[in-house]
Amino acid sequence: MQFTAAQIASMTGGTVDGDPLVTVSTIAKIEEGHPGAISFLANPKYTHHIYTTKSSIVLVKKDFVAEQPVSATLIRVENPYETVAQLLEMASKMMEPKHSGIEQPSFISEGVEVSEGSYIGAFAYIGRNVKLGNNVKIFPQAYIGDNAQIGDNTIIYPGVKIYHNCKVGANCILHAGVVIGADGFGFAPTEDGHYHKIPQIGNVVIEDNVEIGANTTIDRATMGSTIIRKGVKLDNLIQIAHNCEVGSDTVMAAQGGVAGSAKIGSHCMIGGQVGVAGHIAIGNNVQIGAQSGIPRSIPDNQTLMGYPAVDARQFMRQAVNVKNLDTLYRRVNQLEKLLAEKSENK
Amino acid sequence: MQFTAAQIASMTGGTVDGDPLVTVSTIAKIEEGHPGAISFLANPKYTHHIYTTKSSIVLVKKDFVAEQPVSATLIRVENPYETVAQLLEMASKMMEPKHSGIEQPSFISEGVEVSEGSYIGAFAYIGRNVKLGNNVKIFPQAYIGDNAQIGDNTIIYPGVKIYHNCKVGANCILHAGVVIGADGFGFAPTEDGHYHKIPQIGNVVIEDNVEIGANTTIDRATMGSTIIRKGVKLDNLIQIAHNCEVGSDTVMAAQGGVAGSAKIGSHCMIGGQVGVAGHIAIGNNVQIGAQSGIPRSIPDNQTLMGYPAVDARQFMRQAVNVKNLDTLYRRVNQLEKLLAEKSENK
Amino acid sequence: MQFTAAQIASMTGGTVDGDPLVTVSTIAKIEEGHPGAISFLANPKYTHHIYTTKSSIVLVKKDFVAEQPVSATLIRVENPYETVAQLLEMASKMMEPKHSGIEQPSFISEGVEVSEGSYIGAFAYIGRNVKLGNNVKIFPQAYIGDNAQIGDNTIIYPGVKIYHNCKVGANCILHAGVVIGADGFGFAPTEDGHYHKIPQIGNVVIEDNVEIGANTTIDRATMGSTIIRKGVKLDNLIQIAHNCEVGSDTVMAAQGGVAGSAKIGSHCMIGGQVGVAGHIAIGNNVQIGAQSGIPRSIPDNQTLMGYPAVDARQFMRQAVNVKNLDTLYRRVNQLEKLLAEKSENK
Repeated sequence: MQFTAAQIASMTGGTVDGDPLVTVSTIAKIEEGHPGAISFLANPKYTHHIYTTKSSIVLVKKDFVAEQPVSATLIRVENPYETVAQLLEMASKMMEPKHSGIEQPSFISEGVEVSEGSYIGAFAYIGRNVKLGNNVKIFPQAYIGDNAQIGDNTIIYPGVKIYHNCKVGANCILHAGVVIGADGFGFAPTEDGHYHKIPQIGNVVIEDNVEIGANTTIDRATMGSTIIRKGVKLDNLIQIAHNCEVGSDTVMAAQGGVAGSAKIGSHCMIGGQVGVAGHIAIGNNVQIGAQSGIPRSIPDNQTLMGYPAVDARQFMRQAVNVKNLDTLYRRVNQLEKLLAEKSENK
Repeated sequence: MQFTAAQIASMTGGTVDGDPLVTVSTIAKIEEGHPGAISFLANPKYTHHIYTTKSSIVLVKKDFVAEQPVSATLIRVENPYETVAQLLEMASKMMEPKHSGIEQPSFISEGVEVSEGSYIGAFAYIGRNVKLGNNVKIFPQAYIGDNAQIGDNTIIYPGVKIYHNCKVGANCILHAGVVIGADGFGFAPTEDGHYHKIPQIGNVVIEDNVEIGANTTIDRATMGSTIIRKGVKLDNLIQIAHNCEVGSDTVMAAQGGVAGSAKIGSHCMIGGQVGVAGHIAIGNNVQIGAQSGIPRSIPDNQTLMGYPAVDARQFMRQAVNVKNLDTLYRRVNQLEKLLAEKSENK
Repeated sequence: MQFTAAQIASMTGGTVDGDPLVTVSTIAKIEEGHPGAISFLANPKYTHHIYTTKSSIVLVKKDFVAEQPVSATLIRVENPYETVAQLLEMASKMMEPKHSGIEQPSFISEGVEVSEGSYIGAFAYIGRNVKLGNNVKIFPQAYIGDNAQIGDNTIIYPGVKIYHNCKVGANCILHAGVVIGADGFGFAPTEDGHYHKIPQIGNVVIEDNVEIGANTTIDRATMGSTIIRKGVKLDNLIQIAHNCEVGSDTVMAAQGGVAGSAKIGSHCMIGGQVGVAGHIAIGNNVQIGAQSGIPRSIPDNQTLMGYPAVDARQFMRQAVNVKNLDTLYRRVNQLEKLLAEKSENK
C-alpha cells in the first residue's frame, strides 16, 4: 500500500514542502531512513539527521527552518510526534495479527459469556462467574480467576494472571506476565519469632484506559481495594503493593516500586527504578527522577531527585558539592596551616 | 453471617466498651468504615479516624484512652493487628474460592500420585517422578519440572515455574509468575572475548512455611543448593542468585536482589530494592533500609542504610551534612576572605 | 560413574599431585566437600578451605603453593574455573532431563514445521507462520507469536512469551517467564491531559548465543528493532526498553534497566540494579558498579560507580569524603572560633 506526500498531508492536516507525488509504503527512524519510507523529526537533538536521511518524506514542525539543503520532501505539521502516532496507528492496524474466536483447548467455566468478536486463546483459563466485556482479547495461557471482571475492548496478553475478584476496566492493555491481585505482603510477628500471614481479602480495581507493562505486579488489598485510576500507564517490572492508589493519568517508568498503602496523585511522572515508601501521599503533578527514593509525603507540583529525594535543583547542587569535596578538604587543610603559622608567628 | 460485639470479644479474648449487641458482617479500614463493619486501630498515626469512623465496632489496644467521644463500640484486645489477622483469616476462609480435583486438560506424568483433596488446575504440567504432598493446590498453567518435590498443603499459584530437581517444603505459598530453579548466572570468559556457560547442576531447596511473591526468581545453584530456610517471606519481583542462602524467618520487601553465594542470616528485615553483593555474609537480626546497597559482610544486629550502606543513624547525619554543604562552602569562603584580609592588614 | 584423578587430569590437561587412583563420582563446593567429590579452588578468598575440605580431589591453579598439609589429591590446571566448567558440562549432560517430541495437548499453527529432535512441550502455543530452527526445545506453556523466528538449538523454557514478528537467533537460552516484544512504553500527551498510545510496530531481534534470565523483559521497537547482539548474557528481571541496542558479549547482572533508545557497546560488564538513561550511548568495555545510575553517554573503557555515576575511584573517595563530613564541620567550627578569638584579642 502506497501513499503520496499529498495524500498524507491531507490526512494529517499538513502542508507539503517538496514533491507532492513522492510515494512511501513504510515508516522508518530518520537515521535509518531509506527511499519509500516516511520519517519524522520531533526531538531537536536529531535535527542533523534530516540533511542526510534517505527517507522520501520527513514530518517536521510547521516552523522548521532548514539550515542546509534537504533532499527529502517535508510535510509540515503542528506536532510531528502526534502525527507519526496517527500514522503508526494506521500502520499497526494493517500490520498486526488479527485474532478472534475461541481457540481450543481453552478452559471457560460454565455460564461465562463470550461476546462475538472477542478472542479467547488456547490454554486460556476463565474462572467461575467471570464477566467479560464486549470485544475483549484474552491471549493464550492467560488466567482470569473466579468472579473477576474485564471491561470492553480490553486486551489481556499471553500469560497474564488475574486473581479472583479483581476488576479491570475498559480499553485497558495488560502485557504478558502481568500479575494482578496476588496477596499483599502482610505478616504479623508472633511471640516465638515467626510470622503469621495476614489474609488479604481485598482486591485490585483497574479503571479504564490503563496500560500495564510486562511482568508488572499489583497486589490485592488486605481489605478494600488497591486502585489504579483511569489513564494510568505503568511500564514493565513495576511493583504496586497492597492498598495503594495511583491517580489518573500518572505514568511510571520501569522497575519502580510503591510500598503498601501509599497514595500517588494524578498526572505524576515517575522515573525508572524509583522507590516510594509505604503509607505516604504524593500530590498531583509531581515529577520524580529515576532511581530516587521518596521517604515522606510530597505536596503537589514538586520535582524531586535523589535518595532520599530532594528538590531536583538542590540534588544537582548536592552532586556538585560532593564532587568538589576533595578541594574543600584541601582548602580547610590550608586554612588550618595558615592559622597555625599565624599563631606561631605571633 | 453476622456477629455481635460480645461474640467477637469472646472469640478474641477482648472486652466490650459500648453496645455488646451491635452486629457486624464485614471488615473495613477505619477511614472507610460503615455501619455493619468492624475496623481496627493499631497504628497511632490513624488514631484521629476513630472519632469519625462510621464502623460499628473498632478493635483497639487494651489501654486505649479516647480523647473525644467515640460512637463506635470498642473491643479492647492485647494486639489489635493480630486480632484482625484472626478475623481476616475467618473471613478469607468464607470468601475465597475453593478448588479441588483435577481439571482437564492437564498434564500429569505417568506414575505421579495426586492425593485426595489436592487440586491440579487446567493446563498445569507435572513432570516425571514429581512427588506431590497431601492437599497441595497446583493452579492452572503452573509447571513442575522432572523430579521436583512439593510438600503438604503448599499452594502453587497460576503460572509458577519450578525447574527440575527443585524442592519446595510444606505449607508454602508461591504466587503467580514465580520462577524457581532457572540457571544461575555463571559464565567463564574465553580467550577470544566471549563467554562460556558454566552449567548449573545444583537445585533450589525451599523449606517449610515460606511465602514467595509474584514474579520473584530464585536461581538454582551451580553445585549444591540455593536455600531458602523455613519461615522466610519474600515479596514480589525479588532476585535470589545461585548458591545463596536466606536464613529462617527473614523477610525481604519487593524488588530486592541478592547476588551469587551471599548468605543472609535469620530474622533479618530487608527493605525494598535493596542490593546485596555476592559472596558476603549478613548476620542475624540485621535490618536494612530500602534501596540500600550492601557491599560487604555485616555482623549480627546491625541497622543499615544507604549506598554503600552505613549505620542508619550515620546515614541520617550524612544526608543532613550533604544537604548543608552549600552553607559549609560559604563558611570556608568567608574564612579564606577573613584570613586574606588579616594578612593584608598585618 | 566414577573417575580417577589420573583420568580427570588426562581429560583436562592437568597434573596430579597426590593419589592418582583416588576416585570421585560428583562435584561439590570446596567448603561442602565430602569423600567421593571433586572440588575446585579458583578464588583466593576460599584458599583456607583447602586445608580442611573432605573432598577427595581439588582442582587448583598450576602454581598453587600449599602453606599447610592438604589431605585431598590436587590436580593442577591452567584455569580451575574453566576446568570445572568442562566437568560441570559433562555432569549436566549426564544429569539433566532429556526432552524431545511433541507433547499433547499443544497448539501448533497449520504449516509450522517442527524438525526431528525438537521438543514442543504440552500447552505450548506456536502462532501462524512461525519458523522454528532445527533441534529447538520449546518447553510447556511457552508462547511464540505469529511470524516469530527461533534459531537452531535454541531453548525456550516454560512460560516464555515471544510476541509476533520477533526473532531469536541460534544457540540461545531464554529462561522461564522471559517476555520478548511487549509494546515499548510510548505515549503522546494530549491537550486534555491524557496520554495517547504510540503504536509500537517494530520488533525485537536477538542474535546468536544469547542467554536471558528468568522474568527479564525486552520491549519491541516503536519502529525498526530493539537489538540484542550475539553473545550477550542478561541475568534475571532486567528491563530493556524499546529501540535499545546491547552490544555483543556484554553481560548485565540482575534487575538492571535500560531506558528507551539507549545503546550499550560490546564487552561491557554491568552490575545489578544499574539504571541507564534513555537516548544515550555507552562505549565498549565499560564496567559499571551495582546500583549505579548512568545519566549521560560514556566513552569506551570507563569504570563507573554511583548515582549519578562517576569514575569508580572518584566514587570511593566521595564515599570517604562524605563519611568524614562530621569531622570537617567540626574543623570549620574550630577555625571560625579561633579566628573570632584572634579578632577579639587584636
